Amino acid sequence: MTESPLPVAVLVSGSGSNLQALLDDPGRGLDFAICSVISDRPNVTALDRAQDAGVETVVVPWSDFDSRETFTTAICDAALGSGALGLVLAGFMRILSQTAMEHFPDAIINVHPALLPAFPGAHAVENALVHRVAITGVTVHFVDEQVDHGPIIAQEAVGVRPDDDVASLHERIQAVEHRLLPKVVGAFGRGLLTVHDRYVRWEDESEEGVD
Amino acid sequence: MTESPLPVAVLVSGSGSNLQALLDDPGRGLDFAICSVISDRPNVTALDRAQDAGVETVVVPWSDFDSRETFTTAICDAALGSGALGLVLAGFMRILSQTAMEHFPDAIINVHPALLPAFPGAHAVENALVHRVAITGVTVHFVDEQVDHGPIIAQEAVGVRPDDDVASLHERIQAVEHRLLPKVVGAFGRGLLTVHDRYVRWEDESEEGVD
Repeated sequence: MTESPLPVAVLVSGSGSNLQALLDDPGRGLDFAICSVISDRPNVTALDRAQDAGVETVVVPWSDFDSRETFTTAICDAALGSGALGLVLAGFMRILSQTAMEHFPDAIINVHPALLPAFPGAHAVENALVHRVAITGVTVHFVDEQVDHGPIIAQEAVGVRPDDDVASLHERIQAVEHRLLPKVVGAFGRGLLTVHDRYVRWEDESEEGVD
Repeated sequence: MTESPLPVAVLVSGSGSNLQALLDDPGRGLDFAICSVISDRPNVTALDRAQDAGVETVVVPWSDFDSRETFTTAICDAALGSGALGLVLAGFMRILSQTAMEHFPDAIINVHPALLPAFPGAHAVENALVHRVAITGVTVHFVDEQVDHGPIIAQEAVGVRPDDDVASLHERIQAVEHRLLPKVVGAFGRGLLTVHDRYVRWEDESEEGVD
């Protein structure tokens, strides 16, 4: 078990409700520390949440960069500058280049509002409703070079109701996200997650010291 | 509510464990009747199960036909000849042409061992393990002109365990199939399922006669 909480940077683009779940998690300060909150857009609610919690904020405006590569480098510089050893994408709407994976190998966590590989992309909740699935859910995964593709850390199913619209379904999905993401980041911070050939092993803490 | 059980033909290709679940279902004879079991291969266990239950069997060998169209026509002729008003694909490994959908509009039911649209095709269980999902499941859907695509009638999630192999995962998926498929065929037989623009409405029997 690591001795001090693992520093992670949280990347945001909007309201930051997943950031709030991390800020409120009992594991924060024990299993992980949020060393910075980085946004690709100024003036988003997520930045207010970070400031209210006394966490350093950085804005790296997407529009200031001429390529995904230079944008990614600036994001990584900001994260590394704050001491981050991992990134958590919490509603972050930009795709990072391979450079981010090189700086943070098996250490970038994303939360997606569907049971991947179903419904990748930016409209997962809408697409699930259009497809008329009966079950969708939440996936937390490590980021790899493909969008919404990397090794799956945790998934949880959410049932779709006959009268659901995007707002009502998204609300139930977010409730699961807010529970699942801090749990995963906590396990990551405690060093319990290892990746082998797409398989994410959750080390069983109760087994520690057994052999 | 229909007055007599709806006659359906069950299409099989192998062991017929889903056929057995239908044969054993309390709804058989009340909500639906199996008027024939049709196989694309001779000498499969599913045919023995049908004969043991006193159900008419027909073999329509795939290899006897020069096209999907002539094969589909022969399957439909066999089903219609036995009086079927619907088809249930229970581990049937052939793809039917559009002709089948014309004979049985919104009346062909398929069971698939994954949460569609994830993992369509013939290797759903293997592919779920290779992708290392944490949750897969079962989909029962009406067949349309695209493979494993039609309107979803019911889905149920199945968790993947760290030590699962194809056999162990498939066994738990099949246990769900054996429960879900008869439930859906029973509802279909009672006329409770209606399709509008990919959405399958389950009519609530308790509401009958309310207005």
